[in-house]
Amino acid sequence: MTSITTTEDGEFVRSSSHFDDRITADGSSPWPVEAGRYRLVVNLACPWASRALVTRRLLGLESAISVGVTDPIQDEKSWGFTLDSGDRDPVLGIRYLYEAYQAAEPGYTGGVSVPAVVDIPSGKLVTNDYPQITLDLATQWKDHQRPGAPDLYPEHLREEIDEVNETVFHDVNNAVYEAGFAQNQAAYAKAYGKLFTRLDQLSERLETRRYLVGDTITEADIRLFTTLVRFDAAYHGHFKCNRNKLTEMPVLWAYTRDLFQTPGFGDTVDFGHIKEHYHRVHTEINPLGIVPEGPDLTGWSTPHGREALGGRPFGEGTSPAPMPEAVGRAYLALRS
Amino acid sequence: MTSITTTEDGEFVRSSSHFDDRITADGSSPWPVEAGRYRLVVNLACPWASRALVTRRLLGLESAISVGVTDPIQDEKSWGFTLDSGDRDPVLGIRYLYEAYQAAEPGYTGGVSVPAVVDIPSGKLVTNDYPQITLDLATQWKDHQRPGAPDLYPEHLREEIDEVNETVFHDVNNAVYEAGFAQNQAAYAKAYGKLFTRLDQLSERLETRRYLVGDTITEADIRLFTTLVRFDAAYHGHFKCNRNKLTEMPVLWAYTRDLFQTPGFGDTVDFGHIKEHYHRVHTEINPLGIVPEGPDLTGWSTPHGREALGGRPFGEGTSPAPMPEAVGRAYLALRS
Repeated sequence: MTSITTTEDGEFVRSSSHFDDRITADGSSPWPVEAGRYRLVVNLACPWASRALVTRRLLGLESAISVGVTDPIQDEKSWGFTLDSGDRDPVLGIRYLYEAYQAAEPGYTGGVSVPAVVDIPSGKLVTNDYPQITLDLATQWKDHQRPGAPDLYPEHLREEIDEVNETVFHDVNNAVYEAGFAQNQAAYAKAYGKLFTRLDQLSERLETRRYLVGDTITEADIRLFTTLVRFDAAYHGHFKCNRNKLTEMPVLWAYTRDLFQTPGFGDTVDFGHIKEHYHRVHTEINPLGIVPEGPDLTGWSTPHGREALGGRPFGEGTSPAPMPEAVGRAYLALRS
Repeated sequence: MTSITTTEDGEFVRSSSHFDDRITADGSSPWPVEAGRYRLVVNLACPWASRALVTRRLLGLESAISVGVTDPIQDEKSWGFTLDSGDRDPVLGIRYLYEAYQAAEPGYTGGVSVPAVVDIPSGKLVTNDYPQITLDLATQWKDHQRPGAPDLYPEHLREEIDEVNETVFHDVNNAVYEAGFAQNQAAYAKAYGKLFTRLDQLSERLETRRYLVGDTITEADIRLFTTLVRFDAAYHGHFKCNRNKLTEMPVLWAYTRDLFQTPGFGDTVDFGHIKEHYHRVHTEINPLGIVPEGPDLTGWSTPHGREALGGRPFGEGTSPAPMPEAVGRAYLALRS
């Protein structure tokens, strides 16, 4: 998501998803759950899209839902499939993601965002409603999940997960953008204050428990992870969220490393795409488009010590198999 | 110093000082050493000007050479005395530093930089030749230095100090600017590589010795300090020198803290002015002029443990008296 809209006070406003159809298991929507029918289009820089990638991996939905990866840099024609041969997505046959949006709504000229789930037979966009996409992968696709798939959105914890997600959305996921895209000092300072106050609270919460809700990995962890993993590579410098680096907040740093080292998390992360995207696309705040060489990424594979807090990452389930990968270069792994 | 000149390859080129007269003790120049005659004009954001401030404090030259402090933000009329009553320097009576440059050279329209030493009776700029200014404070002003003033440029160590200064200038002091003002990725990467290679070498050198040359504080430490103390507040984010923060390089961080906590160093540092200047002046790289709220500065007063390495900060001399101050707000202290 990229269009920058702001209030009169110079505060960033996130545009809402326009296409919010759901894919359901019970026939309650026009889009039935069906293996091989949908393609998840992502950009590896995007924290919102990466939630779906993590969820898909944890649940073992790789063979049921394929993935298309766009160029990290979008242009005026939206997200392009320049990483694929002939600059076309090999399954959808399109060059730009906007084509799927227009297939769904002829003449559509609004924003084009990832994650996007596209119906392969018709080429139509089904949904770009990122908060619902991951919940539906967890709840609607149960028949296609791998044996031992964890329950990422357990019924008895949903109220608490929703509550955590709500504060994490406003004060973390979106607050980093509010800081980065603020048009004046006051709007920036407001977002910065909100962000670090919440990070301190989350740090306190995670000091004595391994995961955010319950004692297993849930949707809440996925949503916090995809922002934190980008913190030092993008938000700290580019968005001026610079009270501390993630590496300087010991509890959150260990928490994020713990998840990063868990199969399904770190293997979806591509620091190269993250750095390229943020620094080259937002020329309003980085006019020369120079991409920082840092940060040093060697710390990501160091021991985190969080096992000592107990917790059962996958509950009654099991870990997904590790993916062949170069750490922090998910694109290479996804292609291999 | 602020004008951004670059090569065809997009690399930053620092302009040289135009006014390089010297103030000498032996009558070899038109400007004799004389207490009360000269005014040192600085901007507290500037690492080059801050060298002179540190040197003056360590040597106890406060009553011999007074100081004028400009606004952290220069405009098209150069550095202004907006912090003073009536927007005029109370001693020189001028509103902008360019007036002293023009008094020295009528019609002068070149760059106007700090540090600048101005002859109070005539109002003429004597020198803006920053590397020579500090050496002359150390060697020419001996008769006016406080009892117990250290020898910052001892004869028997000059060769080594000059050598260290030369590499520190190219690979640290100036390299951060080369990284920040690079016009393309290649020029940036070149400066970044040079900088961190040298920081690693300096870190190794300082692991077993408290100071850079000999076992006392010298000119070499002052020159490295004024860049390192600005590292996280300006260069890490704004200039994309972001492999690590200073706080993540343990030896250099302890070394810089050690100096910061030594009277004469930290009391010349004003993090507010530093952040304001860099982020508001360089709109080519920070177009909205938003000043980061971070970094967290609380670490500066933590124990550094460097006493264990031995060394005698002031050699046969003594420490200057502490200055009344709010840590990191030198401006307040200088005014009090």
